[in-house]
Amino acid sequence: MIYFDSDYMSGAHPEVLERLVATNAEQTVGYGSDGYTQRAQDLIRTACGAPQARVQLLVGGTQTNATLIDGVLARHEGVLAAESGHIAVHEAGAVEASGHKVLTLPHTEGKVSAETVARYIADFYHDETYTHMVAPGMLYISQPTEYGTIYSRAELEALSRVCHEADIPLYIDGARLGYALAAEGCDFTLQDIAALSDLFYIGGTKVGALFGEAVVVTNPRLIPHLFPLVKQHGALLAKGRLLGVQFEALFTNDLYLRIARRAVGQALRLRDAFVARGYEVVGSSPTNQQFFRLDNAVIDRLKEQVSFELWGPRGAEQSVVRFVTGWSTSDEDIEALIALL
Amino acid sequence: MIYFDSDYMSGAHPEVLERLVATNAEQTVGYGSDGYTQRAQDLIRTACGAPQARVQLLVGGTQTNATLIDGVLARHEGVLAAESGHIAVHEAGAVEASGHKVLTLPHTEGKVSAETVARYIADFYHDETYTHMVAPGMLYISQPTEYGTIYSRAELEALSRVCHEADIPLYIDGARLGYALAAEGCDFTLQDIAALSDLFYIGGTKVGALFGEAVVVTNPRLIPHLFPLVKQHGALLAKGRLLGVQFEALFTNDLYLRIARRAVGQALRLRDAFVARGYEVVGSSPTNQQFFRLDNAVIDRLKEQVSFELWGPRGAEQSVVRFVTGWSTSDEDIEALIALL
Amino acid sequence: MIYFDSDYMSGAHPEVLERLVATNAEQTVGYGSDGYTQRAQDLIRTACGAPQARVQLLVGGTQTNATLIDGVLARHEGVLAAESGHIAVHEAGAVEASGHKVLTLPHTEGKVSAETVARYIADFYHDETYTHMVAPGMLYISQPTEYGTIYSRAELEALSRVCHEADIPLYIDGARLGYALAAEGCDFTLQDIAALSDLFYIGGTKVGALFGEAVVVTNPRLIPHLFPLVKQHGALLAKGRLLGVQFEALFTNDLYLRIARRAVGQALRLRDAFVARGYEVVGSSPTNQQFFRLDNAVIDRLKEQVSFELWGPRGAEQSVVRFVTGWSTSDEDIEALIALL
Amino acid sequence: MIYFDSDYMSGAHPEVLERLVATNAEQTVGYGSDGYTQRAQDLIRTACGAPQARVQLLVGGTQTNATLIDGVLARHEGVLAAESGHIAVHEAGAVEASGHKVLTLPHTEGKVSAETVARYIADFYHDETYTHMVAPGMLYISQPTEYGTIYSRAELEALSRVCHEADIPLYIDGARLGYALAAEGCDFTLQDIAALSDLFYIGGTKVGALFGEAVVVTNPRLIPHLFPLVKQHGALLAKGRLLGVQFEALFTNDLYLRIARRAVGQALRLRDAFVARGYEVVGSSPTNQQFFRLDNAVIDRLKEQVSFELWGPRGAEQSVVRFVTGWSTSDEDIEALIALL
Repeated sequence: MIYFDSDYMSGAHPEVLERLVATNAEQTVGYGSDGYTQRAQDLIRTACGAPQARVQLLVGGTQTNATLIDGVLARHEGVLAAESGHIAVHEAGAVEASGHKVLTLPHTEGKVSAETVARYIADFYHDETYTHMVAPGMLYISQPTEYGTIYSRAELEALSRVCHEADIPLYIDGARLGYALAAEGCDFTLQDIAALSDLFYIGGTKVGALFGEAVVVTNPRLIPHLFPLVKQHGALLAKGRLLGVQFEALFTNDLYLRIARRAVGQALRLRDAFVARGYEVVGSSPTNQQFFRLDNAVIDRLKEQVSFELWGPRGAEQSVVRFVTGWSTSDEDIEALIALL
Repeated sequence: MIYFDSDYMSGAHPEVLERLVATNAEQTVGYGSDGYTQRAQDLIRTACGAPQARVQLLVGGTQTNATLIDGVLARHEGVLAAESGHIAVHEAGAVEASGHKVLTLPHTEGKVSAETVARYIADFYHDETYTHMVAPGMLYISQPTEYGTIYSRAELEALSRVCHEADIPLYIDGARLGYALAAEGCDFTLQDIAALSDLFYIGGTKVGALFGEAVVVTNPRLIPHLFPLVKQHGALLAKGRLLGVQFEALFTNDLYLRIARRAVGQALRLRDAFVARGYEVVGSSPTNQQFFRLDNAVIDRLKEQVSFELWGPRGAEQSVVRFVTGWSTSDEDIEALIALL
Repeated sequence: MIYFDSDYMSGAHPEVLERLVATNAEQTVGYGSDGYTQRAQDLIRTACGAPQARVQLLVGGTQTNATLIDGVLARHEGVLAAESGHIAVHEAGAVEASGHKVLTLPHTEGKVSAETVARYIADFYHDETYTHMVAPGMLYISQPTEYGTIYSRAELEALSRVCHEADIPLYIDGARLGYALAAEGCDFTLQDIAALSDLFYIGGTKVGALFGEAVVVTNPRLIPHLFPLVKQHGALLAKGRLLGVQFEALFTNDLYLRIARRAVGQALRLRDAFVARGYEVVGSSPTNQQFFRLDNAVIDRLKEQVSFELWGPRGAEQSVVRFVTGWSTSDEDIEALIALL
Repeated sequence: MIYFDSDYMSGAHPEVLERLVATNAEQTVGYGSDGYTQRAQDLIRTACGAPQARVQLLVGGTQTNATLIDGVLARHEGVLAAESGHIAVHEAGAVEASGHKVLTLPHTEGKVSAETVARYIADFYHDETYTHMVAPGMLYISQPTEYGTIYSRAELEALSRVCHEADIPLYIDGARLGYALAAEGCDFTLQDIAALSDLFYIGGTKVGALFGEAVVVTNPRLIPHLFPLVKQHGALLAKGRLLGVQFEALFTNDLYLRIARRAVGQALRLRDAFVARGYEVVGSSPTNQQFFRLDNAVIDRLKEQVSFELWGPRGAEQSVVRFVTGWSTSDEDIEALIALL
């Protein structure tokens, strides 16, 4: 079986694993007060060009989103997000479980436009009954989106401007941030992400770590008491240095971007092969997720040897499927898949 | 100033007020254990043809919706509702504040169809990732809807059937239930409402009471511990008999329906007058709420002598407005308004 | 049957009821934007000597406590309260339902001392693991307490000082505040309450209103967005002017204090009669609640003609009982009870 | 520096790490649907003698407690726990954050007695006002307790009996369960734990894993929809097989117990050395946590070379300290510490 279900099918990238093994017997204090975590935090601040930022290492994406959104919003506020946003669809109601509404916005391939956000906010405050409604308290976007697409630098700037004019923070879910930075046609840097957002996270789970997401709060006043909130959300890892060791490795010798670039390359190769064989590409993802519309018969045939996900419900005749590459997607995997097309 | 903002602009209907005054000096136990409340509960069970039902009297609509939805849903479930549903828009996130997502559905003039509900549920369970999503745990509809429209008996039957096939309860928000029962073309009774839903409430606040909503749980196993939940939601009235006295009055000599019929009559008279003067009616409400699209200049002129609400944000040239009648809308009010058109 | 269960056994004081009747037919806007509410708010600000205060009228005590505590606390904070505090015992977990822990303190007859509070806070921050614990974010006291006792002015000053040194707000639950102000030996005024606390409420339900609690936020920056929070908690009354009319009446011609003084007088008369007959008084309440330890046989005999509550579980031979007076406790009630002793 | 702060100072036990390394490059499906997780679940069911049990692998203790307690309790219920229970003190209010009160009980060295529980429940339902209070909906105990003590088999049987008579589940927090099973004087087995409780977890983080807790729901009807709840609580690990691989290793060749027995042996050796030098042992822990009362001067001196925690706030002259051993506590560590005493 070849796996294209997602980018979390294997363990850690060898350079990450090696560090975990090398440091395993060492004893350090827990909960992220250790030296590995401090070095990782410093490396990340430097990579972001954000010396003032607070960096907090967490285990997984859903807990990260839930903790940060809960920490930033006032009780009467909700979070704006694309209808397709991960927090709106695939986190089993984690945001609502901490008491907040996800205010959904129309989108194009997972992206919300600055105009859409601005109009939502303007309409909201023009409504005579707005104090009976959930106030927009922050904007959530994912970069890349759930459709694999990316916001350009100009789009990010426009969103950032709209948010700051409305005095609400811009939060970027970077579960796959590496693949955005390595995308075909990417015109922004990690420093841009840090400069244009108020808080975001750099996903490790899907970019070569065993697990781990590095939260960067570029405006630390937004969540003055992050640590107890992390604990309250069950998101504090006892052996916190495991996160520090991994992110130190990922931000040493450019490993994070090396992993992302290679996986994006494999994904584009795979896309080109589908196209060459006449299959329909769905959307315009320049990252490590590629979507195709296939006959159900083709899907069933491929599924005998390849593992991948349906994208939404199965259609009557055809369905949309998703193929994802990761650090461990080998040339052999790609070639074996292509041979089956 | 003449008020058409809503149906809660005046105090109580005189027959209700009289009973509050007549019983004021009496002493009874609190929290709804008194004889007035018991008689009201019996009258309501009888009127509903539902001797098995649990009847609980609460103060207001938002607290009623929040308490019941929180009581019925499991932690991983959300509530299906029209995008325009009161719980989805105008309750300041009360459902989310108790941890549950409102799963919104497209609608026609506030009404969701059985097909829409069935398709949502079918698609949900056909999605391979559904255990990562919020499961539909109940259906909320309002009767009449926020657009003043009503579900016909056949539509209610179809919704009831879909819900029971999916094993989720059907909950009817009856904040203005009287006006549905008194609507032009209504083809169902209170007994039908009770028979076709699993729980619903009979709104008092907007139909002649000072305040009060009578919850009818026709399937009491749905919320075995309703009382402490009411207390926990801050919805328990110390002088609970105030609710009992009022609902006893409303369900004596058909007062509830008398109030509703008169107000609907006034609303239709008002609608006809707008039509006769060439104004555009928006939607097709047969109840006590009527909607019109007016030039902003007309709105501004009327507002000097008449109080009413914009329906949504103010448009560039024209805006939609809402006129609502209630127990206290007098013939003089209607005539004065007509004279201004 | 004579009722001494509580101070919410009858309807409204006649002067309050008369105003509700007189204004019943009038039409006003809803949700507390009406003139009655504005006048009540002004009267209360004046009575409190707090022109800067935000006054918000709510329906009941539990919803008031839950809304304010939820509004003031950060997500990682809890509320300090006596183990016997209403929020800790008799609100069915309403504070926890909005996500916050009640941090309980030892007490003497319902009162917490400034020393206890100061020591709790000092110990908390001296604990190396405090970021894993719920931080004390505000202090809740009730005046009078659940034991009927009152904090003296010096005690309030000491609590206020401790809170402000720790930079946490002092919140006073005044469900029965009138009876504290009218208590035997009271050495503080309503202005003192306003000056020494950051927010508090003036209970109406138990002091002559049909229902209603007047929240006074003397430091309005504590809850900048109170209105949507009230709505979210299901605590917004559609016919909001009912609260305005009642509090306008209560703060006209000193009615609030007249009601409280008379009820306290009746309670002390009742206490003296119990003492004269050799019954044991429990505690030292100078307010309208009086506690006695009675033989169960006496309790059972009295219960045939008098309604009153056990205070805690029934003992093997004796139990503690509570007798409460209110605006409607008549001389005849007192005399009839005394005749039964 | 020698570390005795806790049992999570090092990485994983070598036999666990080796399996993670050996399986790292492999590709499997995510979220715990892989074969490693299935084998681990089977091994655990077998070790527990509970073929009917549902086994769910989670990352950390706080998220496990919060998820399970939230899943088991009805909205109006709270969880009974010792005042010293981890959920009551050191989880930053995670239980309250999901809406539930921790109902605290007096304890002896962290242990609650069956009598205490039975009396609480009996008193609760004898209180006339109990429907205004948070109902006891489950019992939480930790085995071993936060004081390192263990419940004997007879004590567990008595607690189990009391819970089942009251129809509430018994939940055992086994963050350090191995050390209870390996304790001096332990008279129960893992099968007994499974038979006497309704749900519990086998802690991995503190017993040789990198992280991980194995939840065993011996009565699966208690939480019919555990998976989406895990997701909602942010407790679902994308690379779920990491948990499966580790628990498969821990339950192969008795590794879990071997680790625990060795650490307990080291702790008792350390305790005996303190005793031999005349230091005061605090409490009577037979497990891997040992407590001593030391002069602050001694503490300060030791802290120069040894890392350990104060147990509660620092006293004026003396303070209580905690020393904990784990899989990586070497003979050299113990001897070096003894040399410093």
